Amino acid sequence: MNRRASAADFAAAQRVAHLGTETVFAVSSEAAALAVQGKTIYPFHLGDLNIATPENIVEASLRAIRDGKTTYCPNAGIPQLRDALAEDVSRARGLDYTAGNVSVQPGGKPVIAKFLLTLMDPGDEVLYPNPGFPIYDSLIGFFGGVAVPYTYAEGSDRFHLDLDGIARQITPRTRLLILNDLHNPTAAECTPVELERIAELVLEHDLLVLSDEAYFDVRFAGASRSLASLPGMRERCVILYTFSKKYAMTGWRLGAAIGPKPIIDVITTLNVNIESCPNHFVQYGAVAALTEDQSGPREMMATLKGRRDVALGILNATPGINCLTPETTFYLYPNVTGAVKSTGCDGHESFRRLVLDATGVSFCTRLHFGHALEGEDQYYLRLAYSGVSTAQIQEGLGKLKTLIESYN
Amino acid sequence: MNRRASAADFAAAQRVAHLGTETVFAVSSEAAALAVQGKTIYPFHLGDLNIATPENIVEASLRAIRDGKTTYCPNAGIPQLRDALAEDVSRARGLDYTAGNVSVQPGGKPVIAKFLLTLMDPGDEVLYPNPGFPIYDSLIGFFGGVAVPYTYAEGSDRFHLDLDGIARQITPRTRLLILNDLHNPTAAECTPVELERIAELVLEHDLLVLSDEAYFDVRFAGASRSLASLPGMRERCVILYTFSKKYAMTGWRLGAAIGPKPIIDVITTLNVNIESCPNHFVQYGAVAALTEDQSGPREMMATLKGRRDVALGILNATPGINCLTPETTFYLYPNVTGAVKSTGCDGHESFRRLVLDATGVSFCTRLHFGHALEGEDQYYLRLAYSGVSTAQIQEGLGKLKTLIESYN
Repeated sequence: MNRRASAADFAAAQRVAHLGTETVFAVSSEAAALAVQGKTIYPFHLGDLNIATPENIVEASLRAIRDGKTTYCPNAGIPQLRDALAEDVSRARGLDYTAGNVSVQPGGKPVIAKFLLTLMDPGDEVLYPNPGFPIYDSLIGFFGGVAVPYTYAEGSDRFHLDLDGIARQITPRTRLLILNDLHNPTAAECTPVELERIAELVLEHDLLVLSDEAYFDVRFAGASRSLASLPGMRERCVILYTFSKKYAMTGWRLGAAIGPKPIIDVITTLNVNIESCPNHFVQYGAVAALTEDQSGPREMMATLKGRRDVALGILNATPGINCLTPETTFYLYPNVTGAVKSTGCDGHESFRRLVLDATGVSFCTRLHFGHALEGEDQYYLRLAYSGVSTAQIQEGLGKLKTLIESYN
Repeated sequence: MNRRASAADFAAAQRVAHLGTETVFAVSSEAAALAVQGKTIYPFHLGDLNIATPENIVEASLRAIRDGKTTYCPNAGIPQLRDALAEDVSRARGLDYTAGNVSVQPGGKPVIAKFLLTLMDPGDEVLYPNPGFPIYDSLIGFFGGVAVPYTYAEGSDRFHLDLDGIARQITPRTRLLILNDLHNPTAAECTPVELERIAELVLEHDLLVLSDEAYFDVRFAGASRSLASLPGMRERCVILYTFSKKYAMTGWRLGAAIGPKPIIDVITTLNVNIESCPNHFVQYGAVAALTEDQSGPREMMATLKGRRDVALGILNATPGINCLTPETTFYLYPNVTGAVKSTGCDGHESFRRLVLDATGVSFCTRLHFGHALEGEDQYYLRLAYSGVSTAQIQEGLGKLKTLIESYN
């Protein structure tokens, strides 16, 4: 077992070979390096917000510090927050969760790891979206599972998930389904009929579901739906909830796992083992977020809608770019196949570099959300408009348009 | 693979059968329930602090919120905090860490899970202290390793770890050693000669070490030593650092892994996967903690020393109780074998319940820090004096003394 001579060549555990990352952070670093050199950067790459956390949340957290909430708190979170989350999530989904169904987490992301650690054995197959949030694939492999991708297809007016692909790939080893309806990066949403079909498959094949609902409350029109609301699904879904997006609290790191009590109890025991509890006093801010005046999130959504519309206008006026209009998330997922070809680029990455170097517009592409699947012949970008002002959108995407036009 | 009919009998992953917990939380709940019934409780069970976080830390965090530090931050933590930690930890240990050796974490505890995930393969043997922090044993088993306990023995003036037990139990499958010098619960510290012997074993058997230094800066006299300071050990040790104890920041959830860069890089990739980053703005508070006036921690240590001495005086005046004087941690680990016998109790748990019911003094015993090992015939309590006032100590331990005397 002499696996190394020094730490410089230390032998990591075998599972580390399966560990992925979020390559978006490499794009961030690259953009930051260019900015340091004096280049004007238009940051469309990161799903972060350049909008302040509402003041009432800050004030409630500060009061909690002054009130001595700087000690450990219960492993599953403070009772007031578990109650408020159960009530809020139940109301929006027509369900009846109580505090016992809620385990507060230091962010939404920890729910992914804890869901897999609780329910996935080595060799179990897990269906996950590709394109999709890259951490699903990474952690399935890291914890010994088999990651089975299903995809999304572009329709005439929306993206939709490949239901046949899900059904076709279910085997006796399939145990879990990861669903990210209100989807990052495509902003796709299932129709009620599609959700029913998913529920049928879940019941027929005895699956459990991670329902990543990070963007459930981030929408411009209509109402979000949760798979958990369908008959039989409450007992088979663990909802990933986060305060990050709705309340502009990305850096606060607060979220929750919400689902059947026996599963939530194990997840809370993982809290005991992995981090004891989330930060104590920010949970009082989160209670204020859920129970007080909602003008903060409303104003944020109005701001985001304005940005979305400006971006859509410029993108769809650019030759070789076509972008559908999503009603949820703060991402656009334009099809840029024509522009990639007209600029003579040989793929996603060369197009990304061309645009970044020529215009300073920094974004992710389809390849930052998983490896390309067999038969893919279209090119897509993911533009996050959560961290750029309307003026930056006009200027940056204007430069992008001029660049593409110069090739036509 | 039909493993359940509903979530009520959901089948957890097999690893969940190996997941332990901190039974101290059960003691907390029990004490809280008695308090609700009107009983006066003297809380010696939990290693939490009833001392406010120093004001400069609160102020720096608040300024960071106002300054927009509510967004994501780099996965390894903000550069200023990594620099400050590298400098502080290096100075205290005579080492030369830089920011690249530091990965900031949402608490000290996450370092345990990430160390094991990075370095332990299924079947690897890991030496860990018993009595000791119960999470070591739990997570070694949960992630598929084999937990091999070594113990501590009571000497005439101090507890010392069983070096022969470590040496005797090393096999070709032994890969990792968990060392918690400045030890919870016994407050034991290795002598320089003992640390040298550990370093020899580590080199001879090609081990890597988790050096849990949570209490490194919590001491009343003398200077702490780190195994990492010994020749060859910097490259083989990952230090668990926490702000929880030194700065009365338990509920802030902030710590760090500090060690060889190749290992730290993997741990930071685990940050990307598991929680993105620690809370952003509290890291500015931590920079203030490390770089500004240290009167807060100094006053805290003076307060704790006063409590320690009062507690020691009463314990050592109680028949059948003998307690050594530790210069570190905020725990006392009295030998209560005589008192257990004089009260007619048949073990740790019945003695704990007798005292709790008769006096309201709530504490943990040896059994909250691991299963009893073969040949153990002494009884020990762990009394945390971090969360009780001097008046509570006098009153509570006074009642304990009176109770024990009534049996003699």
